[in-house]
Amino acid sequence: MKLATVAHEGRTTAAVLDGDRWRALPADDLSTLLAVTAPDRVAGLAGAELPGATPVLPLPSPRKVVCCGLNYADHITEMGRELPKHPTLFAKFADTLTGPEDDLTLPHGLDVDWEAELTVVVGAELRSADRDTAERAIAGYTVANDISVRDWQKRTLQWFQGKAWDRTTPLGPVVVTPDELDPVAGVEVICRVNGVERQRGNTRTLVFDAADLLAYISTFTVLRPGDLVLTGTPGGVGSGMTPPVRLADGDLVETEIPGIGTLRNRLRLTDSRS
Amino acid sequence: MKLATVAHEGRTTAAVLDGDRWRALPADDLSTLLAVTAPDRVAGLAGAELPGATPVLPLPSPRKVVCCGLNYADHITEMGRELPKHPTLFAKFADTLTGPEDDLTLPHGLDVDWEAELTVVVGAELRSADRDTAERAIAGYTVANDISVRDWQKRTLQWFQGKAWDRTTPLGPVVVTPDELDPVAGVEVICRVNGVERQRGNTRTLVFDAADLLAYISTFTVLRPGDLVLTGTPGGVGSGMTPPVRLADGDLVETEIPGIGTLRNRLRLTDSRS
Repeated sequence: MKLATVAHEGRTTAAVLDGDRWRALPADDLSTLLAVTAPDRVAGLAGAELPGATPVLPLPSPRKVVCCGLNYADHITEMGRELPKHPTLFAKFADTLTGPEDDLTLPHGLDVDWEAELTVVVGAELRSADRDTAERAIAGYTVANDISVRDWQKRTLQWFQGKAWDRTTPLGPVVVTPDELDPVAGVEVICRVNGVERQRGNTRTLVFDAADLLAYISTFTVLRPGDLVLTGTPGGVGSGMTPPVRLADGDLVETEIPGIGTLRNRLRLTDSRS
Repeated sequence: MKLATVAHEGRTTAAVLDGDRWRALPADDLSTLLAVTAPDRVAGLAGAELPGATPVLPLPSPRKVVCCGLNYADHITEMGRELPKHPTLFAKFADTLTGPEDDLTLPHGLDVDWEAELTVVVGAELRSADRDTAERAIAGYTVANDISVRDWQKRTLQWFQGKAWDRTTPLGPVVVTPDELDPVAGVEVICRVNGVERQRGNTRTLVFDAADLLAYISTFTVLRPGDLVLTGTPGGVGSGMTPPVRLADGDLVETEIPGIGTLRNRLRLTDSRS
């Protein structure tokens, strides 16, 4: 099952894909729908067809967005580091998210980089969950790009201020339920910049997989339906290139996970953001 | 003016102190009130007296809780470090907060530490604000203790997982408006454990004051009424003692800022938290 929030006739609605057509679900968006409806009951709620509907930001109001860094084993070992015992975690805000085709608007002069990531959508409340419970609580998977402002990320020891710029983490275009996608068996995570492939990793090399991360996070904070966990990025980011590369005004960032879809976001550097 | 969320006759309500009596304000809590009412219009809304009312968590639903680390100049210089050029920031969740007299419940075996902090309550929307605009947007000040799980904080490079345990950051008991409290001129920030003073700093030694922090954060993310910024802790935390000290089951942590009030929270270590 593929779920989305779609724009249709001047408003948004949660929707489910039926063949090649979107059908309406009874909520303005997937955040609202998942707050009141278990993922396995969604299919029975499909209503009218929505001709011409377009996916927008699928989860506009998660209460929690938790991100994992340093999580691809092949990238960690190629960098000569040891595999971590614990996931490295930080938070973003709902405001940090933006739609699958939205421009990324930032001030001139920043060192902006890409990070393609598989993202887990929580489908049930989790508190101190074990791995099996966490696995059953996965509503689905979507694509994100954890666009990072490297100079701000490196200003201090804490990455947060380089990771939480409003409307810079594109998400979507759809949420695919676990019966249709198995990241443990392996899905590819790809980033292209202006058509040139820069990242291609496989989720079977994740040190901490989706269920691991949900269980771990739920040890210290409750996770609720619609919350998001970004699982980290494979090798190939701009700051790791020799010499380092940063995104420039007008650059097109495409982030793809086959089986889910592709984000297409253009960077717009401006004098003013507000 | 002193504002609070108070418990009264089995429910909560926003309230303002009139002499020694709480009077009701038209919202269930201060988060809800500030979302719709500018701080300078609150006084005119005071209603019925609330005999026997007790302050609870004043801001139960901020969209953003941003914390600053390494911000007291005297503590930084005594540690032999240079003053930072940029504030070190990380995030908590609304779920991390708890009331001014609530127990702090955590599992056995964790390394739990105290961090008394002045906390700024945002009163107006801020985007890319300058210092003057940020200063005018301060609704008031309250007290927090950024209780930290040091072993989890130090598991990885990112502090977040040691700082975001549900219901471990007590906040309150009241919010004092800026006409009654001037942290730039200096207020003391005190922490006592089982009656023994462990921290006493003064906000006049903050490297980044309230207006600095709000302006800086608003560069990358919008701040809205009811959002919270914790300004960092002075010297004297348990992990900095020789030998290091951790909180034990039953310990009473008192966090005081004269002119605002005192948080009194007892640590309860249990086998299960849920």
